[in-house]
Amino acid sequence: MTGDSNALGRLSLNQATIPAWTLPEAAAACARAGLGWIAPWRDRVAEVGLGASIRAIRDAGLGVSSLCRGGGFGAADEAGRTDRMDDNRRAVEEAAELGAACLVLVCGPEPDHSLSAARGYVAEAVARLAEHAASHGVALAVEPLHPMYCADRSVIVTLDQALALATSAGPGERVGVVVDAYHVWWDPQLYERVAACKGRILGFHVSDWLVPTPDMLNGRGLAGDGVIELRRLRQAVDRAGYAGPIEVEIFNKELWALPAAEALSLVAARYLAHVADQEV
Amino acid sequence: MTGDSNALGRLSLNQATIPAWTLPEAAAACARAGLGWIAPWRDRVAEVGLGASIRAIRDAGLGVSSLCRGGGFGAADEAGRTDRMDDNRRAVEEAAELGAACLVLVCGPEPDHSLSAARGYVAEAVARLAEHAASHGVALAVEPLHPMYCADRSVIVTLDQALALATSAGPGERVGVVVDAYHVWWDPQLYERVAACKGRILGFHVSDWLVPTPDMLNGRGLAGDGVIELRRLRQAVDRAGYAGPIEVEIFNKELWALPAAEALSLVAARYLAHVADQEV
Repeated sequence: MTGDSNALGRLSLNQATIPAWTLPEAAAACARAGLGWIAPWRDRVAEVGLGASIRAIRDAGLGVSSLCRGGGFGAADEAGRTDRMDDNRRAVEEAAELGAACLVLVCGPEPDHSLSAARGYVAEAVARLAEHAASHGVALAVEPLHPMYCADRSVIVTLDQALALATSAGPGERVGVVVDAYHVWWDPQLYERVAACKGRILGFHVSDWLVPTPDMLNGRGLAGDGVIELRRLRQAVDRAGYAGPIEVEIFNKELWALPAAEALSLVAARYLAHVADQEV
Repeated sequence: MTGDSNALGRLSLNQATIPAWTLPEAAAACARAGLGWIAPWRDRVAEVGLGASIRAIRDAGLGVSSLCRGGGFGAADEAGRTDRMDDNRRAVEEAAELGAACLVLVCGPEPDHSLSAARGYVAEAVARLAEHAASHGVALAVEPLHPMYCADRSVIVTLDQALALATSAGPGERVGVVVDAYHVWWDPQLYERVAACKGRILGFHVSDWLVPTPDMLNGRGLAGDGVIELRRLRQAVDRAGYAGPIEVEIFNKELWALPAAEALSLVAARYLAHVADQEV
């Protein structure tokens, strides 16, 4: 499915990086550019329909590195939690239909911001969802977010916390973690923690930390524009046994303002220059 | 020096919270309001002179919870590093003259953003500064900052990293850590880590994490306006043997825009409502 002889064979375009394209447009462009993979978002799948999405990706000859995303388990009451779990079950089913390598989970807070309660409920919810995912052959990938998102996006904020959560929820091929450079680069034990995730890494996402950061949410940088040692981290992730796709996921208003084809060229060039092995 | 029978006896005004006042004005206002402590910044000490600062604080009958601040050890070359170390030595001497309970260290990055090099140099610099501090009877307090400041303000970003650094630099009464609620609240092992800092806690700072955060630098909240369980954290810090002053350090443009006396009343009221033991 992917061209391993191709220098961009491991590269996956996370669709949020170039939102101007519909999913079929993005899939065709990725194939033309030589990428091996794509990571669609559920709302963009819904926009064109699941069947059309599956056909577009298959026609382009791409693999699906992940479906973005499940999670957001918190809710104000039991009915709300049931709704959230039902939606996560649908996300699992969509991931199965798309043949996604994993469903990414961004676990959310509780509406009342009770941190320990939220962390307890997330563990319970992931374990419950893992049963449904196993029955559909879908792997769940818990993505720890940067601690600056702890209050409003994910109470799971470190790799070791995500690893403990995944380990308690199911076997490694079924429940694992995403290593996203932007979210984990600051960790004083980063390389030890990546090594400890051996057998549980289901995804690797790259973008860069800009100095100064122009926006807490939409201020990520292209590889090479910031301070993260992306190649070193990619090598550490490889050493931990991960040989799968490498997603470029960049929320950045300036990048979004570029013509889409130009943005994709930039993403590919920066991947080769700062993430992939250098040509000898 | 401090009135322990007073409900505000442990409260310290970090001067950055109400920058409209000069240091003598702030000291007099704190004394009138019943606070036991103040935490001056070096630039505000320099503004009125060290001698006048010492007299103003003594006349007000306040203790100095900390001097803000030393650190920022990184520099582009050896001459720059020597300059930075010289400045830190002067900060130690000022802290000694002021009778400060500690000198806060915000350790900085390297200008080239090399993370592991910066962390290595910070450990070396703190150990070197600790000798000078010991000879002046000044305690050094390493403050881990929130990971969102890792690239531009402090490569020390977790309590356990700060504790390891302090432990390797000197004995507990000479080199310790600051627990600042804003910087550490997200830590999945927060309470275990605070307990592990027993005997090394030299300061406790409180402010709150607002949702959404209006500004990465100047968007901290008054106690009670955000999501941090401040009283629970204060109790954990107390259990770890810390009985010293509690600094309120809030960088917030809206607070700075209030009349200074009104801002101080708010700070005191929120401390009583959300940090101190509740009256029975």
